[in-house]
Amino acid sequence: MTPISRRRALTLAGVGASAAVLASACDDPKPETDEVAFTGEHQAGIVTPAQDRLHFVALDVTTKDRDRLIKVLKDWTAAAARMTAGRDAGEIGAVDGIPEAPPDDTGEALGLPPSHLTITVGFGPTLFDRFGLAAQRPAALEELPRFTGDTLDAALSGGDIAIQACADDPQVAVHAVRNLIRIGMGAVSVRWSQLGFGRTSSTSTGQATPRNLFGFKDGTRNLKAEETGALRDHLWVQPGDGPAWLDGGSYLVTRKIRMLIETWDRSSLTEQETIVGRYKGSGAPLGTEDEFDDVDFTSVGADGQPLLPTTAHVRLAHPDTNSGARMLRRGYNFVDGSDGLGRLNAGLFFIAYQRDPRTAFIPVQRSLAAQDEMNEYVRHVSSALFACPPGVTGPDDYWGRALFG
Amino acid sequence: MTPISRRRALTLAGVGASAAVLASACDDPKPETDEVAFTGEHQAGIVTPAQDRLHFVALDVTTKDRDRLIKVLKDWTAAAARMTAGRDAGEIGAVDGIPEAPPDDTGEALGLPPSHLTITVGFGPTLFDRFGLAAQRPAALEELPRFTGDTLDAALSGGDIAIQACADDPQVAVHAVRNLIRIGMGAVSVRWSQLGFGRTSSTSTGQATPRNLFGFKDGTRNLKAEETGALRDHLWVQPGDGPAWLDGGSYLVTRKIRMLIETWDRSSLTEQETIVGRYKGSGAPLGTEDEFDDVDFTSVGADGQPLLPTTAHVRLAHPDTNSGARMLRRGYNFVDGSDGLGRLNAGLFFIAYQRDPRTAFIPVQRSLAAQDEMNEYVRHVSSALFACPPGVTGPDDYWGRALFG
Repeated sequence: MTPISRRRALTLAGVGASAAVLASACDDPKPETDEVAFTGEHQAGIVTPAQDRLHFVALDVTTKDRDRLIKVLKDWTAAAARMTAGRDAGEIGAVDGIPEAPPDDTGEALGLPPSHLTITVGFGPTLFDRFGLAAQRPAALEELPRFTGDTLDAALSGGDIAIQACADDPQVAVHAVRNLIRIGMGAVSVRWSQLGFGRTSSTSTGQATPRNLFGFKDGTRNLKAEETGALRDHLWVQPGDGPAWLDGGSYLVTRKIRMLIETWDRSSLTEQETIVGRYKGSGAPLGTEDEFDDVDFTSVGADGQPLLPTTAHVRLAHPDTNSGARMLRRGYNFVDGSDGLGRLNAGLFFIAYQRDPRTAFIPVQRSLAAQDEMNEYVRHVSSALFACPPGVTGPDDYWGRALFG
Repeated sequence: MTPISRRRALTLAGVGASAAVLASACDDPKPETDEVAFTGEHQAGIVTPAQDRLHFVALDVTTKDRDRLIKVLKDWTAAAARMTAGRDAGEIGAVDGIPEAPPDDTGEALGLPPSHLTITVGFGPTLFDRFGLAAQRPAALEELPRFTGDTLDAALSGGDIAIQACADDPQVAVHAVRNLIRIGMGAVSVRWSQLGFGRTSSTSTGQATPRNLFGFKDGTRNLKAEETGALRDHLWVQPGDGPAWLDGGSYLVTRKIRMLIETWDRSSLTEQETIVGRYKGSGAPLGTEDEFDDVDFTSVGADGQPLLPTTAHVRLAHPDTNSGARMLRRGYNFVDGSDGLGRLNAGLFFIAYQRDPRTAFIPVQRSLAAQDEMNEYVRHVSSALFACPPGVTGPDDYWGRALFG
């Protein structure tokens, strides 16, 4: 039985809507460039130019059988390699399946191209309590401290394993996560899950800076794929940092940050710009001209006050205020229906990758939690930390092989 | 002060991600064709070729002041005309705003093109209890009956006013709904809200049939924009049907249908195809060859049983089984995080437009609720009915003018 290629299905069944837009706009064949390589030194989905859509899931491991867990990780790796190439999750597929058996692909992405799908996996601190992994837990991999003002929902926080699926098409990202959940059935179960619809950072110099739901450009000074030296210093775990299985990996922090957008929308333009520390239109730091101008910490206005207030978000989060700490942010906007109190349940699903959270996210967030005037307009409702292993290097490798092998 | 055009901002601030994909794929200027006309005989967003992303909100009207409500409808109409043309919601905007005042656009869609945004408004039965509207309530506009198996959440059902925003870019759809909520602040509040990420129907013959989260092609036989006669018979309210204010309008039914996808994913291919009544791969009705072949109600197999089971969804929902009833479906896939029981909270946000729900949705759903084997895998958790007025015809017109005027 020939495995179904989603690309073949595309030809057979007609093209999806976004592909149709491209095709009608170009009158050219669909570009063959929307596939991101799955294998490599590092996992894809970190410095990959941030795609526009996210499906993130945190899983509890329910099996007590170490071999069963390893089998799931191997099966996931194989399925992820297929799906990121635009193929079905399994050899047999949804269409050419065995009539008496459940299909080994759920089918909703048939006909859709790879859509720059990346699938990135991380391991939470709680995973290391079991499976003989205690000695392999890096010192940096422990539950994040409580920050001032945190209003976390424990059921939406933590998790043994994280899967981040990013793509240009949400149907492709959802399909990927759903099929990995299906493959893990009986060994893992869904703890929490988050859809994101608009990237709030650029991870490559080729990308324009997007806007978050406060309407401001976000992530202007993000760590970017092209900064090789800075990636080594701030993003990738280096030999000697901790247990060797994580060399070439990265720590992933997620924070679901509810924005009180109705309150924000009633604040004046000046107040918004004062809180953020940037002009809303250009994104330039206050007192400067251009989005990419250096932050001006010192200039004072005619009133003798700093042009950039001491409590401005951009000042408090800046590397110069945090012993040079930098992270690669990769967050997404979300709207999760309404909150039962007449408001949208909306905000930022913050994602940041870093070499060590103890010198990056934790001190920066301590500073923000204590002083940032933006806190009046945000609530942190979910928090998690994961250690993401290095990339899968070939057909015999799998996610976590150096940890479990 | 010059109103900011989002398109101008696009040039100034760089292009968004999807535009960048287009540009890099084509090496041509961005096509100027992603704007849908706001004015017309009927509201846009009904027969408009279904966009890929949805933000839907149902609002409670909290003001008791009829003039205030009319003012909101007028302001909404003006803002919608602007936003669907790719402009800010207000004259002054987010960027050129008055420093001491809240911006009259929230800013997160700055730099994004119109993205085929449509905004469609409907009025729920409960609106007619107030504002002297009782005599204007059409007989067909009453709460839908309870159907067998319904497990509705009242807090996620009903509503005085519905706003459906559809676009190619979810950020554009969310921006539109959020700004209308902002404009209505103090007069309306959010009752419930739903994001959808993948259209599950085509509304034009030029569109390929998409797949729902069961992995099947959905809406093959949908009412389509090109069927002028059928639209008159089945979609648009005709003179004499009821109160004149609704002539040229349509009734909108929404149902949030949770799919038990983990259970579905464990069922065999044959069982899935038997329940749906179509082949999963091609989408052809069972016993036929092609997706668009007529449903074969009568052929029997070697075992003497009908090739198309008597309980198949496609049979029960077919016009021939329902006195010719047809609707224009416009639903979306959704994933709303997880359900706290280890599963994704996912399914179909069903949207259907029709000339009269009493001869369309209600009898069809009665039949499905009683006999459809798919019921084992779905739960209806939200339900609503709205009467959508005809289109806005010019600058002096507004949504509901014929009702309130």
